[in-house]
Amino acid sequence: MTSIGVGLIGTGYMGKCHALAWNGVKPVFGDGPKPRLVHLAEVSPELAARRAEEFGFEKSTSDWRALIADPEVEVVSVTTPNAFHAEMAIAALEAGKHVWCEKPMAVGFAEAERMVAAARASGKVTALGYNYIQNPVIRHIRKLLGEGAIGTVNHVRFEMDEDFMADPEALFYWKSEASSGYGALDDFGVHPLSLMQFLFGGVTRVMAQLSMPYADRPSRDGGRRKVETWDIASVLLELRNGASGAMALDRSAWGRKGRIAVQIFGSNGTIAYDQERMNEFQLFQASDAAAEQGFRTILTAPVHAPYDRFIPAPGHGLGFNELKIIECHELLKAIGGDAAAQIVGFEQGLEIERAVHAMAQSHREGRWVAVD
Amino acid sequence: MTSIGVGLIGTGYMGKCHALAWNGVKPVFGDGPKPRLVHLAEVSPELAARRAEEFGFEKSTSDWRALIADPEVEVVSVTTPNAFHAEMAIAALEAGKHVWCEKPMAVGFAEAERMVAAARASGKVTALGYNYIQNPVIRHIRKLLGEGAIGTVNHVRFEMDEDFMADPEALFYWKSEASSGYGALDDFGVHPLSLMQFLFGGVTRVMAQLSMPYADRPSRDGGRRKVETWDIASVLLELRNGASGAMALDRSAWGRKGRIAVQIFGSNGTIAYDQERMNEFQLFQASDAAAEQGFRTILTAPVHAPYDRFIPAPGHGLGFNELKIIECHELLKAIGGDAAAQIVGFEQGLEIERAVHAMAQSHREGRWVAVD
Amino acid sequence: MTSIGVGLIGTGYMGKCHALAWNGVKPVFGDGPKPRLVHLAEVSPELAARRAEEFGFEKSTSDWRALIADPEVEVVSVTTPNAFHAEMAIAALEAGKHVWCEKPMAVGFAEAERMVAAARASGKVTALGYNYIQNPVIRHIRKLLGEGAIGTVNHVRFEMDEDFMADPEALFYWKSEASSGYGALDDFGVHPLSLMQFLFGGVTRVMAQLSMPYADRPSRDGGRRKVETWDIASVLLELRNGASGAMALDRSAWGRKGRIAVQIFGSNGTIAYDQERMNEFQLFQASDAAAEQGFRTILTAPVHAPYDRFIPAPGHGLGFNELKIIECHELLKAIGGDAAAQIVGFEQGLEIERAVHAMAQSHREGRWVAVD
Amino acid sequence: MTSIGVGLIGTGYMGKCHALAWNGVKPVFGDGPKPRLVHLAEVSPELAARRAEEFGFEKSTSDWRALIADPEVEVVSVTTPNAFHAEMAIAALEAGKHVWCEKPMAVGFAEAERMVAAARASGKVTALGYNYIQNPVIRHIRKLLGEGAIGTVNHVRFEMDEDFMADPEALFYWKSEASSGYGALDDFGVHPLSLMQFLFGGVTRVMAQLSMPYADRPSRDGGRRKVETWDIASVLLELRNGASGAMALDRSAWGRKGRIAVQIFGSNGTIAYDQERMNEFQLFQASDAAAEQGFRTILTAPVHAPYDRFIPAPGHGLGFNELKIIECHELLKAIGGDAAAQIVGFEQGLEIERAVHAMAQSHREGRWVAVD
Repeated sequence: MTSIGVGLIGTGYMGKCHALAWNGVKPVFGDGPKPRLVHLAEVSPELAARRAEEFGFEKSTSDWRALIADPEVEVVSVTTPNAFHAEMAIAALEAGKHVWCEKPMAVGFAEAERMVAAARASGKVTALGYNYIQNPVIRHIRKLLGEGAIGTVNHVRFEMDEDFMADPEALFYWKSEASSGYGALDDFGVHPLSLMQFLFGGVTRVMAQLSMPYADRPSRDGGRRKVETWDIASVLLELRNGASGAMALDRSAWGRKGRIAVQIFGSNGTIAYDQERMNEFQLFQASDAAAEQGFRTILTAPVHAPYDRFIPAPGHGLGFNELKIIECHELLKAIGGDAAAQIVGFEQGLEIERAVHAMAQSHREGRWVAVD
Repeated sequence: MTSIGVGLIGTGYMGKCHALAWNGVKPVFGDGPKPRLVHLAEVSPELAARRAEEFGFEKSTSDWRALIADPEVEVVSVTTPNAFHAEMAIAALEAGKHVWCEKPMAVGFAEAERMVAAARASGKVTALGYNYIQNPVIRHIRKLLGEGAIGTVNHVRFEMDEDFMADPEALFYWKSEASSGYGALDDFGVHPLSLMQFLFGGVTRVMAQLSMPYADRPSRDGGRRKVETWDIASVLLELRNGASGAMALDRSAWGRKGRIAVQIFGSNGTIAYDQERMNEFQLFQASDAAAEQGFRTILTAPVHAPYDRFIPAPGHGLGFNELKIIECHELLKAIGGDAAAQIVGFEQGLEIERAVHAMAQSHREGRWVAVD
Repeated sequence: MTSIGVGLIGTGYMGKCHALAWNGVKPVFGDGPKPRLVHLAEVSPELAARRAEEFGFEKSTSDWRALIADPEVEVVSVTTPNAFHAEMAIAALEAGKHVWCEKPMAVGFAEAERMVAAARASGKVTALGYNYIQNPVIRHIRKLLGEGAIGTVNHVRFEMDEDFMADPEALFYWKSEASSGYGALDDFGVHPLSLMQFLFGGVTRVMAQLSMPYADRPSRDGGRRKVETWDIASVLLELRNGASGAMALDRSAWGRKGRIAVQIFGSNGTIAYDQERMNEFQLFQASDAAAEQGFRTILTAPVHAPYDRFIPAPGHGLGFNELKIIECHELLKAIGGDAAAQIVGFEQGLEIERAVHAMAQSHREGRWVAVD
Repeated sequence: MTSIGVGLIGTGYMGKCHALAWNGVKPVFGDGPKPRLVHLAEVSPELAARRAEEFGFEKSTSDWRALIADPEVEVVSVTTPNAFHAEMAIAALEAGKHVWCEKPMAVGFAEAERMVAAARASGKVTALGYNYIQNPVIRHIRKLLGEGAIGTVNHVRFEMDEDFMADPEALFYWKSEASSGYGALDDFGVHPLSLMQFLFGGVTRVMAQLSMPYADRPSRDGGRRKVETWDIASVLLELRNGASGAMALDRSAWGRKGRIAVQIFGSNGTIAYDQERMNEFQLFQASDAAAEQGFRTILTAPVHAPYDRFIPAPGHGLGFNELKIIECHELLKAIGGDAAAQIVGFEQGLEIERAVHAMAQSHREGRWVAVD
C-alpha cells in the first residue's frame, strides 16, 4: 500500500487537528502509505469547499453520507459533535472504511456498545482520539514502569482541570444540559482513564462524588437557568493491579488551562507529570545517593521515541497538535497490520465508557461500584 | 505579667522545637511576658540535665510529675510520644497549668474527650501543635478568602505526602502497629484538617479509602511481620460551606519530604500552596486581563504578618521552626486574654479527631459518614 | 497568486523543519498561496528521491543548480551547512527566486555582505531562519513592551545554553575548528541577537569574553587535538535604547538542552522567559497590590496570535517545529507584499553578523567595541 | 570556657538578626560556650533599654564605647550603618574583644585595610556577616565540588537582584549618594563574591559595566536630584582556577526580592541554586542514564549538615535568620580555636573589597583589571 484515501467529517477544533495530522504524518515519519486527501464534509457546501482548499482535500461535500459512499475513501476521520459519532462511525464501518473517531465515543453507553458491535462485524480498524497517550513522555513513563524503574506501583493520583466553565456569569450553554452527559466525568474523565488504561490496564472499582460549583447560570432570555451537569468530580478508585488511586476533575478551575497532572507512586520511586508542561516529566528514584536525592526534571529528547522523528535535538519541545500526528501514525500502523500499534480501539474505548458510567452510578448510590 | 514560668516535657523532634520557640519568642516579637525556662523533664536525670543546660532551663528532672507539681511552672509543653499526651496534659491542667500539647491530641477518641473535659474544668488555656496554620502564607490566604479575593470557594484539594514509610525493606516499627492508630489518617490527616478548620470551619461529610502499599515488612527476628496500619488514605469530603473536596495522604510517597499541597478553587480565582516551598503561594485571579492572566508566585514579605517581626525585607524566607515561634506567641496572647489568638485549643482539636474517626468508619463501611 | 512553487535544498535537521513548514502552512493559516512542492535537492540522487517522496516534492535532484534553474521554483529553502549558504542564496537570487536561508547567514562577514548585495540587486524577498522571534510568547512580549506594560526597559539579560559540546571526551569535530567560526558566538549568539533586534532594535556597543572549557579533545587517531573555537562567551552590551545588558552563551553547559533564558527589567515591571518552556512566560507588574505582587506564569492562549491558528483552547502548547510554520507564513506574507511581515531579511541579518564580529574583536582587544 | 560575654551594637535589621542568633545558638547546637548577653548599645538610652529587655541583654547604653570598655564583654557584634564599622571594630579589637561585624566591611578600601591591621595586631577572632555561605545548600555544593561531582568547573554565573531601588518615583535617599559607595557593586556584589571565595577561592580578573536605570529621583523639596550611584552592575570575571564567569547585580529589578541565582558548569555536570528558594538546589550529572537525565531538585535534609541540628526531618526548611545562627556557631568555634571554622575574617573580607574596587576601576577605564 503506497497511499491511502482519507475522508474527513468536521473541521472544527479536532477536525483541523486531524487535517494537520493527515498532512504531517508522512513528512514526519517517512514511512507507511502516503495519505491521499480525498474528501471533506462540512455542514454547508461553501464551508466544505473552503476547508478542502485550505486543508488540501480534493473533493468536498455537505453530505457526509456521500463521503462515506466514496470508493476512494478508505479511512474516515469523524470529528463532529459527540451526538453524531455513533451514527457516522457505524455507517463508515458498514461501508467498509477504517474509522478514526474523536472522543468521547458516544453520548450513551448503548450507543458505544453498538459502535463496538459494528467494528467487530466490519473487521476494520477503529481508533479513538485519546491523543495524550501518544505523548513521548507518557510512552517513556510506560517503558519505565515496565522496567520496574520505580518498583511496584502502589498508588496513583490523576487530576484534570481547565477553566472554560469557571465563569459563573457565562451564559448557559449545552455543556450544562443533562443531555450532554454527566459533565466533567465524561468530558474530562475519559482522558485520565485512557492514561490509566494505557499505563495500568484500567480500573476495577470506583467511588465518585460529583458536584456543581454553580446551581444556575444566566440564560439568553435574561433570567437564570438551572445547571444540570456536574463540572467537578472527585473519584476514589482501584487499579487492575490492586493499587489505590484518586482522580479529580474540574472544568471550572480558574487558571488551569490544560492541566492533566499525574502522580505515580511505587515501591522504589515516584513519577510525576503535568500536560501543561507536556515536554517534561519528574522522576524520583530511591536508589539515588541520600544527599543527592531529588525529583529529576527530564526534558523530552530524541531518545524518547518518536520525538526523534520530529526533532533531532533534545529539549526543543513538541506541541499538542503533534500528538495527533503520532496518533495518526499509529492508526496507519494498525491499518498496515502492526499489532503493536498503540491506539485505543472501540473495544478498549468501551472499557473507558464503562468506568465513567460506573462512577456516575457510585455517585448516585453513595457506594463503591465494580467496573466490570 | 512580665514573665511566665515554662516547663518542658520531652526533648525530641518537637521538644527541641518548643525549646527554640520559648527561647526565641520574646526576641522576635518584643511584646508579651518573658518566658522563664523553669523546669525540663526527660526520661533519665542525665539526659534531662544535659538538655536543660543546652536549652537554658533552670531545673531538670526525670519525673514529669515533679515538673507539673513545680509552683514556678505556669505553662507546660507536652512533647512526648502520643500515648502520653492525655495523661500528662490532664495532670497539668488539674495542677492549674496552661498546656501546649503536640499533635495528634491522643491515641483514642475517648482520651481526647477526657482532655477536653479537663481543659473545660480547669479554665486554663490549651493549645495543640498545629503549626502549619501559623505560616504567614496560610494566614494571608485566610485573609484573601475572607475578602473574597477568589470569590466563593467551591472546591478544594489537600495532599500531604512524605516518604519515611516508603522503603518496603525498612524494619517494621511501631508506626505499623494497630495500637499506633490508623496510619496516615491520624499521623498526617490531622494537619490538612487543621488547615481546613482554620480556612473553612472544618468538614461535615467524609468518605475514605485506606490502603497499604506493603502487606508486610521485615522484622528484627529476620522474618516478616504483617503491617496493621494504612500508609495511604484518599478521602472525599464536604466542607462546612458546602464546597466539595478531596484529601490525599501518603506517608510512603518516595521523594515527598514535607509536602502539604493545597488547591482552593473559587468562583473568581484559585489559590495554590505547597509547604515544601513554604515561603510562597500561587494566586490566580479571573479579573486579570485575558492576555496576561496567570498564577502569580507571591513570596512572603513583611506585608504578610507576622513575617515582619522576623525580617524587614521581603523574599528572604522563614523556616519551619519559626512557625513554632509564631504558635508560641499566639499561645502567650491567649494566656494574656486575647480572644483573637490563633490557636487550636483542645475543643477545636476534638473536632479534628472526630473527622479522623469518621473517615476510618467510612472506610470500614464503604459509605459516606457525617462528621456532625 | 493561488500557489507558489517551492524548492528545498538540504533535508537535515532544518531541511526537514522547512519541509514540515511548507506542508503545514496552508492547513494551519488557511490564507495565502498554496505551496506547491516542486523540487528537492540532496547530495545523492537516491537520498533526494527518498526525501522527495517523504516530504511530498514532485521532483528531486542531486544538483542544486538544476533546482535553482527550474522555472517552476519560485522560492528556495537553503538548509545546507553554513559554508554553502552564500553561494546558494546568491545563485537563487540571481535566478530571480525568493530565498529562505537558515542561520547563521554565512561563515564570514564579507560573504554576508555579498548576500545582502545580491538581495538588493534582485529585489526578491529574503528571510533568515530566526524562528525564535516567531514564538507567540515573544510576539506578545514585544506587544507588552510597546504598550509600556513594564515601563521603560533599563536592563536585559539573555542566556543561551545547550550541552552538545559538554562532553570533554567526545571526539573532535568540525565545530571545534577555527574554520567554523568563533564558536558559541556565531553558533548561538545570533539567536539572542535576533531577539534583541526584534524587541529592542539591536545593540550598539559590546565587550566580550570568549573561553574554552576544554583545551583539547580526542581525535580519531587516538591522540588529542587542540580546540580552536570558544564554546563559552560572556558579553556586556548596550541596547539601542541605551539600556545595559548582558548575554551569556555556553554550548558545553551540561543539562541545558534548548535554553534561551530572557530577563527584561523595566521601570514598572519585569518579564522573564525560557525557551525550554516555550509555551509560557513570566510577568511582574509593579502596579499589582503589595501583598499580592508576584511573577505571573502566563500560558500561551488563542489571545496570543497566531496561537489561535493552531489551537482554539489555551494552555495546550505549540512545539518548536510550529515556530517554523509561523516563519513560513510570514515569509509568504512578505512575498505577497505585506510590509508588516515579521521576518529577518538579509539586511537585518547583516546587523546581527556585525554584532557578532564586533564581539569577537572586543574579546581580542580587551575593550568595548561599537557595533556600527 | 562554659560561657562567653556578648555585646551588641545596633538593633536594626541585622542587629535583631544577631540577637536572635545569640539567643538561639546554644539551644540549636547544644555544644560550645553559652552566650551571656551582657551589654547592648543603641542611639538612645530608652531604645537601648527597650531592646535589651526584648533581646534578653543584662545592661544597656547609648554609649557604644562604654559597651566596648565593659570587661564582661568578650565578643562584640557590630551591626550599625556601614560608616561606623571601621571605628567600632577597631576600637573593640584594641580593647581585646573578638569582633563580629556586618558586611560590607567599610566604606573605603583604606578603612578596610586599617581593620585588617587592627585584627592582626589584636590576635582576636574577626568575622564578617556573609551569612549566605552558611546555608547548608552552599556547604553541600562546596562538598560536591570538592568531590568532583560535576568534574572540573569551567564556567559560572552569579546573579543578585532585589527591587528596593526599582521604583523611579521613590524619594532620593542616601543609597543614591556617591558617599555610600558605588551602588549595587558594594551593596550586593560582596555577597556573590563571598560565595565565589568560599566555593572557588575568589576572582583574579574583572571587567565591569555599571549603569543607572534612573538618572534622577524625586527629592524632598519637590524637585529632582541627580542619582550618583549605579543600581545595576554587570561583570565579566575569571576565577582563581581559570574558569570564566559572569556576575550580574541589580537592585532595581522589579519582582526580585532576595534572588541570588548561581549556576556552576563543570566537565561532568551542572549545579544551580537560587536563594529565593534557599532550601533546595539543582544538580545535573552527565553520568545519569541518557533517557532519564535531568536536573534533580534536591531539598535540604539532615544529611546536609548542619540542617540536622535544627530539624531531624528532611524537606521542612530553614529560614534566612537561621543562617545567622550557623554563622554565630562558626564564630564560636573559631573563638574556641577550631581552625576549620567557616567564617569570613577581616583578611578574607579585604580580598572581597579588593575585587569590588577593581570592578569599579575596570568600569572607569573600560578594560580588564587584575584583582591582585
